[in-house]
Amino acid sequence: MTSDVDEIARSILDRLVGAWNVADGKAWGAEFIDDADFVNIFGMQLRGRREIEQRHQYLFDVLFKGSTCEVAVVDTRLLAPTIILAHSTSVAKIPSGPMAGQQASRQSIVFLRSDGGSWQIAALHNTLITSQL
Amino acid sequence: MTSDVDEIARSILDRLVGAWNVADGKAWGAEFIDDADFVNIFGMQLRGRREIEQRHQYLFDVLFKGSTCEVAVVDTRLLAPTIILAHSTSVAKIPSGPMAGQQASRQSIVFLRSDGGSWQIAALHNTLITSQL
Repeated sequence: MTSDVDEIARSILDRLVGAWNVADGKAWGAEFIDDADFVNIFGMQLRGRREIEQRHQYLFDVLFKGSTCEVAVVDTRLLAPTIILAHSTSVAKIPSGPMAGQQASRQSIVFLRSDGGSWQIAALHNTLITSQL
Repeated sequence: MTSDVDEIARSILDRLVGAWNVADGKAWGAEFIDDADFVNIFGMQLRGRREIEQRHQYLFDVLFKGSTCEVAVVDTRLLAPTIILAHSTSVAKIPSGPMAGQQASRQSIVFLRSDGGSWQIAALHNTLITSQL
C-alpha cells in the first residue's frame, strides 16, 4: 500500500509541477476538489478550485512570471481509506520581482479519494522555509 | 453533524490555547497522536508528539516566554468518518525577543478519530499572516 500511496501523491505533485512550469492555472486547479482549501505562504486562505486557479494564474503571469518549480515528496501515509496525508518541499526559481531568487517552501497536503476512485487535493498548506529562531 | 464537528475542533483548540497560556509543553503535546506532524511558521517539520512537546516547551520557555495566545476556528468539515479538516487563525502576544509583538497566523489542522472514538491532531501546519504580494 505504501508504494501505491507514494505513487498517488507523487503523480499529482508531478502534474502540479508541470502546470507551474507551463504557467497553466487551469491545469493547476484541476488537481483540486471543487471546494478545496489552499493556504499560501502569506497565510491567505483560497477557497475552492476557481479561486485556486485564478490566484495561481495571477502568480504565474505576474509575481512568479518566468519561474520554474521542483517538488520533492517528503512523506506520505494513508490516514483513512479515502485520505492520504503527505508532506513535500519545493524550490521555485523566480527570475525577477519582489520574490526574485530561489524560494524554498514546505507543503502539507491532504488528498481525498472520490467515490469513483480518483484522487484529488482537498487541502494544501504552504510555508516558506526560513531560518529557525 | 456540523455542530459536532465544530465542537470537536473547538474543544481541542481550546485545550491547546490553555496549554500555551500556562506554558505546558506536555499538555500541548497531549492533543497530538503519537506520530503527528507539525509544520511550523519557519517551515520546519516536527515529527511525533515528543518532538512537538519539546519544541513547544522551548518556545514557551524562551522565544515566546510570557506570551499568550488566542485561536478562532475558521471552518471545519468531516472529510471521512474518522477525519476532520479544520482551519483556524491565532494571535500570539509576545512580550519580548526577536518576535515581540502581536503575531497573527493561520493553521490547517487534520484531526483523526481513534478506534476508541477520541479525537486528536494528526497534522497541523501553521503560517504567519503577512502582507499579500
